Parts: sequence; C-alpha cells; structure tokens
Amino acid sequence: MTHALPPAPHDAVETDVVIIGAGPVGLFAVFELGLLDLRCHVIDVLDKPGGQCAELYPEKPIYDIPAWPVITGQDLVNRLLEQIEPFAPTFHHQQLVEGLTRLDDGRWLVETDGGVKLAAPVVFIAAGGGSFTPKRPPLPGIEGFEGTSVFYAVRKRETFAGKDLVIAGGGDSALDWALALRTEAKSVTLVHHRDGFRAQPHSVSALRDAVAAGEIGLHIAKLAGLEGADGRLTDVRLENAAQGSFVVPADALLPFYGLTMKLGPIADFGLNLNENLIPVDTEAYETSRPGIFAIGDINTYPGKLKLILSGFHEAALASQKAFRYARPEERLRFQYTTSSTTLQKRLNVA
Amino acid sequence: MTHALPPAPHDAVETDVVIIGAGPVGLFAVFELGLLDLRCHVIDVLDKPGGQCAELYPEKPIYDIPAWPVITGQDLVNRLLEQIEPFAPTFHHQQLVEGLTRLDDGRWLVETDGGVKLAAPVVFIAAGGGSFTPKRPPLPGIEGFEGTSVFYAVRKRETFAGKDLVIAGGGDSALDWALALRTEAKSVTLVHHRDGFRAQPHSVSALRDAVAAGEIGLHIAKLAGLEGADGRLTDVRLENAAQGSFVVPADALLPFYGLTMKLGPIADFGLNLNENLIPVDTEAYETSRPGIFAIGDINTYPGKLKLILSGFHEAALASQKAFRYARPEERLRFQYTTSSTTLQKRLNVA
Repeated sequence: MTHALPPAPHDAVETDVVIIGAGPVGLFAVFELGLLDLRCHVIDVLDKPGGQCAELYPEKPIYDIPAWPVITGQDLVNRLLEQIEPFAPTFHHQQLVEGLTRLDDGRWLVETDGGVKLAAPVVFIAAGGGSFTPKRPPLPGIEGFEGTSVFYAVRKRETFAGKDLVIAGGGDSALDWALALRTEAKSVTLVHHRDGFRAQPHSVSALRDAVAAGEIGLHIAKLAGLEGADGRLTDVRLENAAQGSFVVPADALLPFYGLTMKLGPIADFGLNLNENLIPVDTEAYETSRPGIFAIGDINTYPGKLKLILSGFHEAALASQKAFRYARPEERLRFQYTTSSTTLQKRLNVA
Repeated sequence: MTHALPPAPHDAVETDVVIIGAGPVGLFAVFELGLLDLRCHVIDVLDKPGGQCAELYPEKPIYDIPAWPVITGQDLVNRLLEQIEPFAPTFHHQQLVEGLTRLDDGRWLVETDGGVKLAAPVVFIAAGGGSFTPKRPPLPGIEGFEGTSVFYAVRKRETFAGKDLVIAGGGDSALDWALALRTEAKSVTLVHHRDGFRAQPHSVSALRDAVAAGEIGLHIAKLAGLEGADGRLTDVRLENAAQGSFVVPADALLPFYGLTMKLGPIADFGLNLNENLIPVDTEAYETSRPGIFAIGDINTYPGKLKLILSGFHEAALASQKAFRYARPEERLRFQYTTSSTTLQKRLNVA
C-alpha cells in the first residue's frame, strides 16, 4: 500500500505524459503519444525547443536521419515541430526539473525550479546528456555570490539598472548583453581573455564602436577573483600580462562562458543509474520505476547507440506502454497512419 | 568443426553483406553498413527498389516517418535511394532467394532462382512480409501448366510470338501486356470478370480501340478451367451468365491477378520461426544463426511494432555487429556523421 505517499498538490496541472527534454527525441515522443491520443507537457531548461541540435549545432549538416540525405540540426527540429503541431503540446521552457515524486494515487509529481507542478501517470525522460547548465568560472567562493551578485542569465533587466556590471565572455551572449545593458546600467565592463570575439560580426563592430565612444569598458584579461562579502560583490579582480592584477568595481558579474551538459537533478530521481545513464528494458524503454521511461541518449541497454534515429524507435515503443498506464481501462489497437482514419483525424488530415 | 560444409562455388560473387529485400529498411541498411565501409548486394523479387512502399502504396501519404510530416511511399523510397547513392550497392531485381547455405569458411552462400550466387559473412533479411508472389487463379490442375503454358510475368516476349494468348485481369499489367503482345501473338483474348477496368484511363481507352478494331478479343467472364495435356494448353474454359460455359483456344494463359505476400523460401533457411516471423535479440537483431540478421517487419521481439522507423533503428544496431563478422581483425570506433571527416568522406561530402 502507498499510505506514506503524498497526494497531488492542489495547484498541480494534470496531464497524460510529462516529457523532460525538448530535443528531437522528446519532440517525436509527442507525436507517437499524440497518435494514441495522449496529451503531453514538455519541459526543457533551454529557452526554445530542439535541445543540442538547436543549441549546439543548428547549422551543422546531419547525414544519418533516415530519408534525409542531409538536414541541419535546426531544420530537423523545425520539421519535428511541424509534425507534432496537431497535438499541441504545452511547452515549459527555461525550467529545470528538480523533483520527481510518486503520489498516493500512483501518478508522478514533476516540479521545476520555476514553480511548474505537473501530475501525470507517465514521465518520459528524454534529457539527452542531461541539462544544459552555464559554465562556472573557476573563481574561489563564486558559489557564495550566485543569485545575488553573479548571474548566468538575464531574467529581468531591471535587476541591473544603475549598477556597475562586469560581463565576461567573447560570444554572442556576452556582447549582446553588454550592448543592451549599457543604457540602463551605471557602467558596463566587458572582460575577455583575448582581443578577438566569436560573436556575430555586426555585434563585434557595434561593441568596438561602443568601446571607442566610452560607453563600454573593455579589458583583455582573465577573471582572477571576486571581492565583497555576504553575497554582495564590490570588485572583480582581473589579471593580464601588461597590467598584472587589478580590480574593477562591480555590483554584479555576468559570466557568459557557454553551456555545459550535466546530468543534474535526474541523479536524485531514485532511478537506477549506470555511469550517468539510465538502464532501460528494450521492450518499452522503461526505467526501474513504473511509469517512468527513458528514451534517447540518456538511456542505456545492450547494443545502445546514441543515434537520434534510435530515440525515435524508443519513443514509439515507450508510447505503447505509456498508454497502458494512462488509459488502463482502454484496449490499444495498433493502427497505421496510412490506413487509419482515426489516426488521420488526430493528425487533422482526414 | 565444419568439415561437412561446402566451399564457396567458383562462380559466387564475394561481398560483405547480402541484403534480402529492397524495401525502406533494406535500403537504409545499405546506408548504415556503408558508413562502416561495408559493401552490399541487395536482392529483391520486385522489378524496382522500394518493396511494399513502392509496390502497394507509392502515392499513399505516410505520416509517421520522423521529421517528415507527410511523405508518399514512393518519395520515401526516392529519398532513401538518394541517401545511399554514395555507397553504390549492387541490386539484383526480380530474383527470389531460394538457398541460404553455410559455407566451410563460415560465410553464407545466397542463391536465387535467377542464378545469382553471392558469398558473404553477413546476411540481412529485410524481407517485410516475405516475397511478393503472383496470385494464382483457383483452377484445378493449374500447377501442371505453370512455366510451360501458364505464365505470371513476361520475361521474354519471343515466348509468345505466333501464339494464341489468353490474358486474364483488369489492371495495368493485364491491359498493357494485351496491348503490347497483340502485334506478335497470333491472337490475344482479354478475360475480365466485369466490363470495367482499374488500369490507367489511357490504357483502358487504347484497349477499347483495339477491341473495336478486332485486334484484341474481349470476354466479360470468369476463368473456369484449363484444357490440354502434358503441360501444353489447348483451350481456356470461360463462364458467364449470358453464354454459360465456353472455350477459347489458347497456347498460353497469362493471369495478372496482382501480387500476394508469402514468406516463401525463407521458411526453409533453417531459422527459428514464430508465426512466420523471425525471432531476434534486441542487441543486434541477429537470428538463431550467426551472421544472419533479420530487420524490419519480418522480425519479432518483445515490444515489436511493425513500423518503418523501427526497422531503421534495427538496421543501425545490426550493422555494428555485422562489422565484427565482416572485419574481425578491425576495431570499430563509433562516429557521428556531423563530426567525423572519415564518415563525411565516405558520404562524398568532405
């Protein structure tokens, strides 16, 4: 009996399946579940669908998607989004799943760091290599300033109005935010380890103009330390060959060093893990906990290849068993999209 | 030891992998094997690649190919053919595999009814529901005339020169051959059970003209019997409501009643079978015999769905193990098409 398990909170949204991860495999799962008339909510830590494909290699050609002799990561994502359109999933972006709890009615409660609460009989973990998290500069004591003076993303611009800001990095995020925040901040100083930037050429030339006009300070240096107390930053210490060690006054530091993949809270979900991968069966790609499935790069089984096309297959088989959890009283009849008018109606083509 | 096994015949062509079946899954296997630098020969009973997709529903939209919101069977086949072009497989069409024999060196000998002989360490059975075979009219004793007076395909037109021919059926094959053979045959009589034809409109109107001109005889009737002896036909007996039972002189009968799917000689390959399906493991989709893999609709395992996308996954995993049989001395390194220049060179894109 499950008397020790909690009931669903009153503010939890109910759905059939919660999909963790909006990469190609999570998106295709929406399609396979949709064919079975199951509704999905999709949670992803990034600000848009597509996962690694859209974040790490949107323009890179992929050659091994079946029936696509060549397709870019972004095009693949766009095609999948078009394919799942009839099933209108609810997306929750920039949300990290922090809790996965069994409820007293056998369903699962999924909770994110942004306050999303979903109750569902089925969870698909399609989280690839885990969640993308910002790379943290290797500065002693930086954890103590995070959330108060050190920020890896700009959620509300007002936070930075009238402040002395140090922005670190040489890519698009660093340059775009340096340019954008210079109007409301007291001062903006960009710090990069070399006098060359991998951001878009037009951003680089806008930055050079702003630096020449005295609107943005620029130091070719590396971050060397943080000064301040109680989570409040006063200065950022920099270092380079010409000037040695020196400080720049700062109320806030925004490091934009890119994203790295971490398994993250999934490690705490109570699932069996094998070298940061989730072992599953090959009948339904289900984990050690009933109703929790793992598909795509995050799972492991004998013969596993981390191929997108394998995730598609795993999504299809997992969806069949998901149906049994979500609709225990109904009988599932296997149908083809080529011949079933029921499926064609769900797809809005009949 | 394998002393009882035969050596490869001198006229066998050697290759890495023989693929039985040129449907979408067989075609994609060429791609996955090609990425591993394995060469393939593909055998199919039909006269063109594509299997069921091209034969049964070339114009029918399919909605569940990942990243293709909609694609017709023929377009899917065309895209796959384009994708495997860099690997230039050798196709053997209109060939039925009749023999699969273990050789004394551990390889397999694949023999077809058309005399093709291939020796390879690996065989992929991607035969879908089996081989397409012509539907046989239900006439007593018809087997005794097959190959001598009853033909289900026209292999050599000369066979029919100067002969009295009865052609049965109302589809494209029946009408096209009636029209084509009327010039060299002594006489052509078309027999169809109703005065309406499902062939292309232009073929139907050409037929009506030829009947009006007396070049082709037409009977709206059903086949009722065969007359003749020792495999030599003299007459075909027909029957309809208006005329009752009557005969038409015939040296040859060509029934074009369409194709039906049969497991065929695969049942005699010495593989374990389960209700006409081939059980495989899900690590490599290998059968009970080493080096023989079964992928796509013809295999079975717990959770199996007869989906094209599952066959793609099965082809990828089977190819990894196929490599070990074909290149036992080499080590396989898993690589991605997005990042490996070795793979990109094989694909002619780097």
